Amino acid sequence: MSKRIGQRTLTFSRAPRITSSYTLVGPREGKGPHALDFDEILPDDTLGQKTAEKTERLMLELAITKTLEQHDTAIEDVQFLIAGDLLNQITTSCLAASTYPVPFLGIYGACSTFAQALGLGAVLLEGDFAQQVLIGTASHYQTAERQFRYPIELNVQHLQTNHVTVTGAAAAILSFADRGPRITHATFGQVVDMGLKDPHDMGSAMAPAAFHTIKAHLADTGRSLQDYDLVLTGDLGKQGRKMLRLLLEREGFEGLERLQDGGSQIFGDWQPVGAGGSGAACVAVMTLGYVLNRLNSAKARRALIVATGALLSALTVLQGESIPCIAHAIALEQ
Amino acid sequence: MSKRIGQRTLTFSRAPRITSSYTLVGPREGKGPHALDFDEILPDDTLGQKTAEKTERLMLELAITKTLEQHDTAIEDVQFLIAGDLLNQITTSCLAASTYPVPFLGIYGACSTFAQALGLGAVLLEGDFAQQVLIGTASHYQTAERQFRYPIELNVQHLQTNHVTVTGAAAAILSFADRGPRITHATFGQVVDMGLKDPHDMGSAMAPAAFHTIKAHLADTGRSLQDYDLVLTGDLGKQGRKMLRLLLEREGFEGLERLQDGGSQIFGDWQPVGAGGSGAACVAVMTLGYVLNRLNSAKARRALIVATGALLSALTVLQGESIPCIAHAIALEQ
Repeated sequence: MSKRIGQRTLTFSRAPRITSSYTLVGPREGKGPHALDFDEILPDDTLGQKTAEKTERLMLELAITKTLEQHDTAIEDVQFLIAGDLLNQITTSCLAASTYPVPFLGIYGACSTFAQALGLGAVLLEGDFAQQVLIGTASHYQTAERQFRYPIELNVQHLQTNHVTVTGAAAAILSFADRGPRITHATFGQVVDMGLKDPHDMGSAMAPAAFHTIKAHLADTGRSLQDYDLVLTGDLGKQGRKMLRLLLEREGFEGLERLQDGGSQIFGDWQPVGAGGSGAACVAVMTLGYVLNRLNSAKARRALIVATGALLSALTVLQGESIPCIAHAIALEQ
Repeated sequence: MSKRIGQRTLTFSRAPRITSSYTLVGPREGKGPHALDFDEILPDDTLGQKTAEKTERLMLELAITKTLEQHDTAIEDVQFLIAGDLLNQITTSCLAASTYPVPFLGIYGACSTFAQALGLGAVLLEGDFAQQVLIGTASHYQTAERQFRYPIELNVQHLQTNHVTVTGAAAAILSFADRGPRITHATFGQVVDMGLKDPHDMGSAMAPAAFHTIKAHLADTGRSLQDYDLVLTGDLGKQGRKMLRLLLEREGFEGLERLQDGGSQIFGDWQPVGAGGSGAACVAVMTLGYVLNRLNSAKARRALIVATGALLSALTVLQGESIPCIAHAIALEQ
């Protein structure tokens, strides 16, 4: 049987698993409603480092090292490290990778990076190119704010449609070991650009990409939203989530009650975070924390992760370009 | 037989091929010794665009579109587009990708990006996840200079160890069609950081990564340098090339006369380019231009591409970080 079904969804008949994972988040995320879903809440957002970039790198290294420890795996027994992050030239991942003597594949999909890593890792395992693959990502409020928006020292007031970048890191080992949720499908998305240009409302820009990928995934697999106990988009935020529902409703999709959104849920309503969380770590910690807990405790049997990314840069905004967006969907099953 | 031989080299028994490709370069590259190896030499380095970033994007789109045309392939018959570039958040690739309705995998490996794309494309084909994969990359002297060094308007004097970023773009279709060189092996490299910090001498920083990957590749495959008619590193430049030879000589490797370097060769000695060319397009156009011409005309039977990347950013330089480097090796055979 071909591994490709329908137009673009890959199905993994050998079903690699998320065997081990580790999530850590900053203090603000630790005060949100999902605090108990994460493995570790950092006491502060510096970890004693001189720069926020060094903190971000250290967070990623901590997540990777703890993942290896939890699985009692030596780095030498891992065949690939796939990682990416939001910083220019993904330097968080590149610098962290220099600590691990394992082939490194740097990727970039903005806040969808984690799902791209999950899907590529599954491809390497399913195709028999590896026995164990490490994936990881991280983001930090301060590094992202100053790179994409303004230095936090300026204290610029945020709009209600602005996201707050999640401070956190996540890593996982994918393998054929006999525990952990199985990765059954990957639907890699195409870039969708509806011409939106407002970097302060990335949820609206990303919603059409999420819609496009969900539609392709359901068409390819013959499934409906109801076939999933949980469909976690991320990070559409409050605005983007509404847009996605409108798009799905307009085309008659049912089961919208299955939709959840990592960006909208990681913070509480009592937290002043505009549209919600974003950042490469957001959907990563929500997947490896919240969704895995639901699957592992049998509160959900099947989940779909639809990670979205806004593929803009500070320069493309200044040059008046629109915001190309992408979404990758990964189906997980207990 | 396992597809993994030795420690880290993948061997592709189905041997996907580089079925179609297109290379275009700027006027300066068109005055170099390899001018006749490229498919197109641009009349100027703007293509009528208002910004150099728009030119870079257009170059990539031209390379992709011409590659599709040459192979008489509709984009709908391609299952993946893998692309990356040097710009922050790989926006050249992301914006270009929005023109093509095909799943997009954004990658980043600095000047090694092209080899990473070649290897990942081969993985997707060999593992039966795709029938046709498009890969592409681009770089532009002006966009890279102003992002990594200084705006060209400042006319800052270059050191002899500085590289000049190649203006160019390259794309290829990988498939199982019955023409074009076969991709037989991929050795993905690990990040090697020897603590060097000088962004004006990236050749010296990258040479140990090239050495590490070549050594792993030869050990895994049981081959020697003499088993290749041509080993093209890129882009070590004049300084890095010397360093690599020293490292190989010190450990008793023979066949160093097979070594060539894309960065050192793309420009002529009469051109004031410091250590030579660099940029994501450099090793890409040298591979798809020069090396493919050697293979297709039977002047070489077997070639090894060792693409190197310096994984730094303007910010990591300012923050005093060392330069993590990587090299990916791809074996091609006629």
